[in-house]
Amino acid sequence: MRGKARELVVGAAQLGPIARHETRTEVVERLLALLHRGHEQGCELVVYPELALTTFFPRWWIEDPRELDGFYETEMPSPEVAPLFATAARLGIGFCLGYAELTPDGHRYNTYLLVDGRGNEVAKYRKVHIPGHERHEPQRPFQHLERAYFEPGPETFGTWSAFRGEIGLALCNDRRWPETYRVMGLADVEMILIGYNTPIHYFPDPTQDPLAGFHNHLVMQAGAYQNGTFVVGVAKGGMEEGVRSLAESCIIAPSGEILAQASTESDELVSATCDLNWCVAYKKTLFDFARYRRPEMYQAITRRQEVR
Amino acid sequence: MRGKARELVVGAAQLGPIARHETRTEVVERLLALLHRGHEQGCELVVYPELALTTFFPRWWIEDPRELDGFYETEMPSPEVAPLFATAARLGIGFCLGYAELTPDGHRYNTYLLVDGRGNEVAKYRKVHIPGHERHEPQRPFQHLERAYFEPGPETFGTWSAFRGEIGLALCNDRRWPETYRVMGLADVEMILIGYNTPIHYFPDPTQDPLAGFHNHLVMQAGAYQNGTFVVGVAKGGMEEGVRSLAESCIIAPSGEILAQASTESDELVSATCDLNWCVAYKKTLFDFARYRRPEMYQAITRRQEVR
Repeated sequence: MRGKARELVVGAAQLGPIARHETRTEVVERLLALLHRGHEQGCELVVYPELALTTFFPRWWIEDPRELDGFYETEMPSPEVAPLFATAARLGIGFCLGYAELTPDGHRYNTYLLVDGRGNEVAKYRKVHIPGHERHEPQRPFQHLERAYFEPGPETFGTWSAFRGEIGLALCNDRRWPETYRVMGLADVEMILIGYNTPIHYFPDPTQDPLAGFHNHLVMQAGAYQNGTFVVGVAKGGMEEGVRSLAESCIIAPSGEILAQASTESDELVSATCDLNWCVAYKKTLFDFARYRRPEMYQAITRRQEVR
Repeated sequence: MRGKARELVVGAAQLGPIARHETRTEVVERLLALLHRGHEQGCELVVYPELALTTFFPRWWIEDPRELDGFYETEMPSPEVAPLFATAARLGIGFCLGYAELTPDGHRYNTYLLVDGRGNEVAKYRKVHIPGHERHEPQRPFQHLERAYFEPGPETFGTWSAFRGEIGLALCNDRRWPETYRVMGLADVEMILIGYNTPIHYFPDPTQDPLAGFHNHLVMQAGAYQNGTFVVGVAKGGMEEGVRSLAESCIIAPSGEILAQASTESDELVSATCDLNWCVAYKKTLFDFARYRRPEMYQAITRRQEVR
């Protein structure tokens, strides 16, 4: 069932903190260093985190529109990011990069871009599940204003034929919702790439803080197993502007097992050889959707927003 | 947020193997012993496994209809099971019991019955996801003929107001499907009771065998966390008629943490005090469905049976 032809070496390119004063040029230098580490490890695909080009700015209530706009990209690649595209294409490595997108017509999305080994855009995903809050809440030690700074993505989760497999994209909070994985599972996804920024302190319920790492792996491992797909979860972690975020980037098999995991809260690349044919062992047996699913029993999931 | 008024002491009443020759009267003696242990531990609710009254008969291809019918219940309580109902009511303990049901009009279901502390039926659930195969497959070391011996339940997952909370029911293979938990999560479930019989050897893909315990906990812990509900998973485990089944019964909190876990493959009761108000910590924050879910993005889940 398995064979070399469908083996994909993927790298999870975790970032440590990015300070508010760091420039994109400085960040791209770090992305390039990780790219070269991926190249040394034989990666065909290097996966960066969500919002990988700047500090995690939703932690501040930013009133000055010009200052806020400074965190968004209006073109991709921008001049500062162009070296990443050029070097990756020269090395024949594809990559996935998260950034804040400001469209020409004024929409703001939390975006994840997949680029192939020749530097061509394969897919653009805009985050579906936007967590946090809409308004300034000064009682918090830090803000989580994603709902002020991003619109929800207008399209559902997609998959794209690339890297000899079927690749899906999601971002951060998306990974906590089983629907995320299932929508892609129903499109035969074989590897889901997920970038995240996850502050360890959760103000609405701090009893969840010590469980941040457990929950992170739990949802991604379950999503992988229940859909017979690889999952690559990539953090921006560590202590950034006084706020500690979860690291623990990992590469998960269709069995739900963690194949590789970052051991620091800094810039770090971990890689794994992923035999995409492994997915078949789950998709065609226990989770043979055609044989075992019962969509008529699941109607509440799409008919109902919330508790009855 | 929490308070005594919503604390429920629940017992997971794991069963060791039941041999083919054991009578229901003998099995009910074992159920009663577990009930008394639950009573000693202050349980208000004792949860038994799936198909708790006989050996796991779908492991055999049974051609004689009379022999097959002998594994089903045509009334509940039957004379043999009546002592369980009577003793539980006398002790003021509710219970949940799995058995093979043969209805007066000839339907065969894998059924889970919830009974309150006065001996009254609260709910009857008929298994939605029927695993295994339809026909005799002699190449297997043992059969898994649930699809020959049971119809799929005609109704979706329900929840019932009982034990001062909202209780949901599921059985065995149901627990591997995230839709199971979500349908009940959308009905505000606070505790899902799940009985199971899980042979550790999975003939279609034996690479999954060493992961049986990991997968069992993974899916139930994820389902608990993602819906802010307790989950009580109860096995019939151990070596039964030459086939080893997973034990590892457990009680899981809305945080996804395992609060209690069986440590044997035999008859064993483990209990935990479950503060049902703990659910609120998840249902009203990170998983506030009204605020964060996006059902319009999930349409494939109910529109599509299988991979496009």
